[in-house]
Amino acid sequence: MLTLYYAAHTCSLASHIALLDARATYRLKRIDFGRTEQQSLAYLEINPKARVPALVTPRGILTETPAILVFIAQSFPEALLAPMGDPFAFAELQSFNSYLCSTLHVAHAHRVRGHRWADDPASFADMRRKVPQSVGACYELIESRMLKGPWVMGECYTIADPYLFTLAQWLEDDGINPTRIPRVMEHRSRMAARANVKRAIAAELAD
Amino acid sequence: MLTLYYAAHTCSLASHIALLDARATYRLKRIDFGRTEQQSLAYLEINPKARVPALVTPRGILTETPAILVFIAQSFPEALLAPMGDPFAFAELQSFNSYLCSTLHVAHAHRVRGHRWADDPASFADMRRKVPQSVGACYELIESRMLKGPWVMGECYTIADPYLFTLAQWLEDDGINPTRIPRVMEHRSRMAARANVKRAIAAELAD
Repeated sequence: MLTLYYAAHTCSLASHIALLDARATYRLKRIDFGRTEQQSLAYLEINPKARVPALVTPRGILTETPAILVFIAQSFPEALLAPMGDPFAFAELQSFNSYLCSTLHVAHAHRVRGHRWADDPASFADMRRKVPQSVGACYELIESRMLKGPWVMGECYTIADPYLFTLAQWLEDDGINPTRIPRVMEHRSRMAARANVKRAIAAELAD
Repeated sequence: MLTLYYAAHTCSLASHIALLDARATYRLKRIDFGRTEQQSLAYLEINPKARVPALVTPRGILTETPAILVFIAQSFPEALLAPMGDPFAFAELQSFNSYLCSTLHVAHAHRVRGHRWADDPASFADMRRKVPQSVGACYELIESRMLKGPWVMGECYTIADPYLFTLAQWLEDDGINPTRIPRVMEHRSRMAARANVKRAIAAELAD
């Protein structure tokens, strides 16, 4: 049995969707960011980084979205969520997900989590002002060079799709003009129409 | 034939060491950050992100260190650089490398690349002041919870080892006290003694 620790409106949604796509058997455990439950001693035992997602497996606990997504894809190969047997195609997928976690998500985090990297409220305001530009540059690159279409990696749906969809939930709040990234928006709409995506979002909001 | 675009003193060293570990045949192409060659039109054709590393392969170009490292490991399986057949062990390795790229390297980058996320020189100074704390917290977590020893993943050397070694080159400049992270320092010393590591560093400095 797998257990996914998640919080609503965070990047853990990507792993949640992937678990459904893989037809995995899993339990959900909500971490309440409103009560800073991610900082509780109980949760720090699960994930000392005080973040979500964390996936509890029979072998141990995994953290970091790109790693959890590959674990799901590799553990449920019949779901065909990653081209594990093709080193180049798999590396392209990993490259996309790595960009999301280390560049796009990081740029976004400067809007409300500036305290990770600075101390002065004036710095936080400066960071917030830059987010439309820094996040916008990421989306322009994804739009023009990285999103192959119709899915991220082309004809085959992969674990890159729920990850991009999840981060793309936040783009309006980050000050991005959706009309400049029509392919990203079309991808987001197509993902939002999928039954597993609707089911994951409904479960997170209902919990 | 593979071609690695690199710059001295950057995270591309990890991929360079891994190519040697894999006994790959490759060419090196230096990108001169001092002349901002990463912004040149010629290099933007290789990597529109204006970063290193980039690995040119017969199938196309790969970017992002965690992806390039896995591509090398998977393309040269006889070098045993990643536990590809064990989904949990592979995910643990991916989790470690993902943390390096999205948290440790990002925290470090706030020392000299604050312009990515802010505009005001006062914000840059604030970010620089925070680096010993933010990077230090990463190393304390690596020291206490993540580095299994003797290698990152335990008894087997993997692609996580050159990556940690590469980022650990910068820790003194980031204001980290090495005496607080003896296991990280021991790992760095053992890596530095390896022939492939010496060879990679010498090649980058001589080029």
